[in-house]
Amino acid sequence: MADALIRSKKPATSARTPAGGAPTVPHSAAEAADPRIDVSAVTDLLLGTWAQTRRQARDMIKDPAFWEVDGQSVADHRERVLGQLRLLVEHGAAARAYPTEYGGQNDNGANIAGFEELVLADPSLQIKAGVQWGLFGAAIQQLGTKRHHDAWLKDAAELRLPGAFAMTETGHGSDVAAIGTTATYDADTEEFVIHTPFRGAWKDYLGNAALHGRAATVFAQLITGGVNYGVHCFLVPLRDEDGDFLAGIGGEDDGVKGGLNGIDNGRLHFDHVRIPRFNLLDRYGQVAADGTYSSDIPSPGRRFFTMLGALVQGRVSLDGASTTAAALALKIAVTYAGQRRQFDSGSGTPEVVLLDYGNHQRRLIPRIATAYAQAFAHDEFLRAFDGVFSGRTDTPSEREDLETLAAALKPLSTWNALDTIQECREACGGSGFLAENRLVGLHHDLDVYVTFEGDNNILLQLVGKRLLGDFSGQFKGASTGRLARYVAAQTAGKVFHGAGLRRLGQTVADFGSTARSVGLGLREEQQHQLLADRVQQMITDLAMRLRPASKLSPAAAAALFNENQAELIDAARAHGELLQWEAFSDALHTVGDDGTLRVLTWLRDLFGLSLIEKHLAWYLLHGRLSAQRAASVSRYVDRLCARLRPHAQDLVDAWGFEPEHVRAPIASGAESARQEEAIAYYAELRTSGAAPVPEKSLKKKR
Amino acid sequence: MADALIRSKKPATSARTPAGGAPTVPHSAAEAADPRIDVSAVTDLLLGTWAQTRRQARDMIKDPAFWEVDGQSVADHRERVLGQLRLLVEHGAAARAYPTEYGGQNDNGANIAGFEELVLADPSLQIKAGVQWGLFGAAIQQLGTKRHHDAWLKDAAELRLPGAFAMTETGHGSDVAAIGTTATYDADTEEFVIHTPFRGAWKDYLGNAALHGRAATVFAQLITGGVNYGVHCFLVPLRDEDGDFLAGIGGEDDGVKGGLNGIDNGRLHFDHVRIPRFNLLDRYGQVAADGTYSSDIPSPGRRFFTMLGALVQGRVSLDGASTTAAALALKIAVTYAGQRRQFDSGSGTPEVVLLDYGNHQRRLIPRIATAYAQAFAHDEFLRAFDGVFSGRTDTPSEREDLETLAAALKPLSTWNALDTIQECREACGGSGFLAENRLVGLHHDLDVYVTFEGDNNILLQLVGKRLLGDFSGQFKGASTGRLARYVAAQTAGKVFHGAGLRRLGQTVADFGSTARSVGLGLREEQQHQLLADRVQQMITDLAMRLRPASKLSPAAAAALFNENQAELIDAARAHGELLQWEAFSDALHTVGDDGTLRVLTWLRDLFGLSLIEKHLAWYLLHGRLSAQRAASVSRYVDRLCARLRPHAQDLVDAWGFEPEHVRAPIASGAESARQEEAIAYYAELRTSGAAPVPEKSLKKKR
Repeated sequence: MADALIRSKKPATSARTPAGGAPTVPHSAAEAADPRIDVSAVTDLLLGTWAQTRRQARDMIKDPAFWEVDGQSVADHRERVLGQLRLLVEHGAAARAYPTEYGGQNDNGANIAGFEELVLADPSLQIKAGVQWGLFGAAIQQLGTKRHHDAWLKDAAELRLPGAFAMTETGHGSDVAAIGTTATYDADTEEFVIHTPFRGAWKDYLGNAALHGRAATVFAQLITGGVNYGVHCFLVPLRDEDGDFLAGIGGEDDGVKGGLNGIDNGRLHFDHVRIPRFNLLDRYGQVAADGTYSSDIPSPGRRFFTMLGALVQGRVSLDGASTTAAALALKIAVTYAGQRRQFDSGSGTPEVVLLDYGNHQRRLIPRIATAYAQAFAHDEFLRAFDGVFSGRTDTPSEREDLETLAAALKPLSTWNALDTIQECREACGGSGFLAENRLVGLHHDLDVYVTFEGDNNILLQLVGKRLLGDFSGQFKGASTGRLARYVAAQTAGKVFHGAGLRRLGQTVADFGSTARSVGLGLREEQQHQLLADRVQQMITDLAMRLRPASKLSPAAAAALFNENQAELIDAARAHGELLQWEAFSDALHTVGDDGTLRVLTWLRDLFGLSLIEKHLAWYLLHGRLSAQRAASVSRYVDRLCARLRPHAQDLVDAWGFEPEHVRAPIASGAESARQEEAIAYYAELRTSGAAPVPEKSLKKKR
Repeated sequence: MADALIRSKKPATSARTPAGGAPTVPHSAAEAADPRIDVSAVTDLLLGTWAQTRRQARDMIKDPAFWEVDGQSVADHRERVLGQLRLLVEHGAAARAYPTEYGGQNDNGANIAGFEELVLADPSLQIKAGVQWGLFGAAIQQLGTKRHHDAWLKDAAELRLPGAFAMTETGHGSDVAAIGTTATYDADTEEFVIHTPFRGAWKDYLGNAALHGRAATVFAQLITGGVNYGVHCFLVPLRDEDGDFLAGIGGEDDGVKGGLNGIDNGRLHFDHVRIPRFNLLDRYGQVAADGTYSSDIPSPGRRFFTMLGALVQGRVSLDGASTTAAALALKIAVTYAGQRRQFDSGSGTPEVVLLDYGNHQRRLIPRIATAYAQAFAHDEFLRAFDGVFSGRTDTPSEREDLETLAAALKPLSTWNALDTIQECREACGGSGFLAENRLVGLHHDLDVYVTFEGDNNILLQLVGKRLLGDFSGQFKGASTGRLARYVAAQTAGKVFHGAGLRRLGQTVADFGSTARSVGLGLREEQQHQLLADRVQQMITDLAMRLRPASKLSPAAAAALFNENQAELIDAARAHGELLQWEAFSDALHTVGDDGTLRVLTWLRDLFGLSLIEKHLAWYLLHGRLSAQRAASVSRYVDRLCARLRPHAQDLVDAWGFEPEHVRAPIASGAESARQEEAIAYYAELRTSGAAPVPEKSLKKKR
């Protein structure tokens, strides 16, 4: 296999400065070496609004006490992570979102930012902390009132009251409204009776439930006076001082999981467990002593979504932590790819560094661009979250937008983390499969991020429905004619845009020759137009296809919707990608340094063009790109990869991870030292004259 | 989130028989319910040529002694798997490929078939058995001669001599020719001196090296008389009876891995270790007592590839085992999706079964088609392997074809296994993340299949080079003009086929209206043409682009190749996909039963159309599909998914896995029982009159 790969030309570092002109058009890899990013300025940019808290958290987790230990038993790992939670309390890093009177800092944004960084130490620590303070404690804080805060919040904050968040049931995950657990009010004793009526209604997959939880915030159907008022949350004590279940409570350990084994996930069930009326977390719905129900939110549906929305922070933090984990994987794989050599051209020169191979660049460099886009999008998202939860911008419409943003971004970043970590693991070959190099562990732990806190497909479907709602809102009360004219205007000059309106033989609405399209046709404005138009067109097409639903029977309407479900999800994904691209572009506008701006502009272009390449068939089918311009997209991506190759190490270094965060031996410089030792050995052998003659040269002599 | 998903129409099972006509054109989901596959006949088809051995192996591993135990420590898991290897010996299931006089059955095909099934018990068992008998033992068998067989083969077969296969080094994985370990002949003592000259030349990632290996087949540069004759294989004793390293040998444990933790992978290094001349496995190259080297294969390159080729069986078995693992994951996820209900339409009817959702069908059903295609391709591959290794068809060109086939199929099936297992895991939500449901474990274990036994990207590159070689072989000695005419003829009538030959405004070479294209444009012959033409066009384009290389400097030629590396790999992938499609179609021609034929034809069509959909941008850019016909591809895939939905359970059942092979509680029927219990509970509650009134209905009354 020695001749299987041929040595690439290494970009010269003494390249001439490129002449002026469009900054997004790379002409050769050599030119790209000239501008450099200001690494520490880019670190500031990536750390974002809560950079200071992130730096504090990263400093704290340099202590090996916070690190995962490979190969620990499940039992030992669980104990270790519980101990780490106590360390967080000691460091004042536990519950920054809580009011100061309960041991917090009243700072929602900083709370999430600091929490996200824990993924670098051990994702089990991140998620167990999230269960304790972001779910169990946050339910008390967000769904309870001052009486409940006074009773439990400080104990939760300081881990004297470890708790489980008992929402999901074996039978119902994402469909929370349909859970089976009941909380029936007994006016005689002023108690709620918490009960599990069948096996499918067992609470399941709950962190802190198998071992450490002393109480749980239990979601159940609130029944009083013979009426079911829907899902509400109750604080239910679980275990006594010795860790034994209280009367009426039972449970099971979920056992070994695909990852996150530092968390004691388990099941819970309740056999007519009585709790005081007080224990209803009643911010959004109250039950009087006589059993009368009251709520400021009359619509049961809106009340339900308001309660769920109060817990959006889980999705916020997963978006950020996934992005950080993907960046860590890229730091490891890119560092290794810049040191590891493999295959030579047979001429006795050193073997080629992996990152100089065109295919390896294609595998890693676009993923750096995606991680950057996600980081910028996440910071905007976190600011939106902080605005609403601090009360500064707390309106129903801001809350709704925030939830849609969460539903759009969390799926993209969690899936991308798995994709990026896996590609990095494969790009590191056998060494990538060793636990010590961390990539496999990150994949195992983050696997479940794509289905918990809302299954990604279901979240995207919610986004799609919101987009459809916004679209039809524009035409509320308008005639069919007006909608038809809108659709026609949208597609004017486009050859094909969907099933109904094709006109064969018409020229594609596109501009310029191939040369111009490379130079001018795929710059910022055009990228934006292509990405934004795609979302609009997809939603328009879906709206048109779903229009007959209002005249169909419920079953037929459901079938029509079902036929279009996959495309609705695609449209939501396109919307999320657009948001990420816009966030990247907005971030560029804050960059002052010329070299940084040029390199990050290439990186943003690579992100945009990679998205367009991914959806190229759509652009061609819908007449949004001519075949010429479409064909240039992949070549442009290739050129951007080559141009960014000399900057790859800077770009991953700019995440600011220190050796205590990286910890992978293959990214430590050990590979480089091994390569140099081998090169020196062969050089010395040649000099000594003792080197064996290759058989090939022998045959030539004969 | 209750209204996020709307109930789909469930296909009626009492559908009318469709009228005759083209069998590949589904009109509605209801029609599809009528024909059924003959499940046990399809099982025979899937089990293939060595069905009997596969059934024997599956019967054997019903014994829980062969099963993986979740959460075992690495040390315990390693001991357990070693014990399982001893059980294989006891069952006569260890080394079917070896000659009968050494305890085998002289049956290469059955050996691989039986071995592949072990993946159902524990992939660690499969791979550790592969290390012992398929690598260590096979090196003795294939690279040694009768003297070596007499000395070691029976001990290897019966596990009295556990061994490591010491090829890979820390510094060199896929580039075996460049390994650093030396074996220098000392004529005075008639010994080879095995030596590790630097850290990068440590042997690494070797199963059996950390603990159990008593010897190793060590690959090293053979040096005699001051000449390096390239990589040869030597048997080197490693440990004494107590398990301690012999003098001059050192090593390290590779520690915890991302999976396969039942195998004791480790590192080895050698400090001037002397072994007798006898220990050179000298079938392809001999050293006389005086140090004279001889070989029947004069070309060092060909000799090297012949030796490597003798060990192709590893790739054969990974192709089969990956396919079986993907099928097992689908069996679990499809069974669950057919029982699990989630979200209702609010009308009190039972919730919708997951597999009735359009998006869920899109996620799972095309992957069933891929698993089938791979199974059929694998059986052909295994027959080719058996032909060569039995000696029946053992010619250099058959061997070369076999290696190319291995390099084309192993990457596709191993990557597909990871993709399918992951999609299945996500499709099962939180329960998919529990180790007991097996999906996460399968992903962890099979992860490394994509980079070991030849990194997938490097294997595909070899395939691409072979295709390029075959292409240019057609034009050997021909004028540039002839090649140009060939290329022009290839692209006649095509608007765009690459960078150089675009003609804007020309009509696309495609046939028929949308209606006809749905009916006639995507059937077997057209699928074949589209898939085959793509391979040919890609290779033609690459050949044209790489032609200038012969006139360039080595560095410039390497750079040109590097620019085209990613596309060469894409072309090789297209070639592998075509082979799989052809194997599926060939298998259809052996089906007699009408119902089976119709359903499997839909499944083959789904495989073909899914490939075309995946590469749709390419087809559009190269004028191979009109926009009209391209637009119909996705709709056709949707319709095939809907049509196959009623057959999904049959199709996964036809793999013939029994409960002892599946072992996942979510695929046991427990989910169905839970659903029924919940439905019965609510029904009884309604009947009793004690059911609480929903708040909504209360408001309506007011």
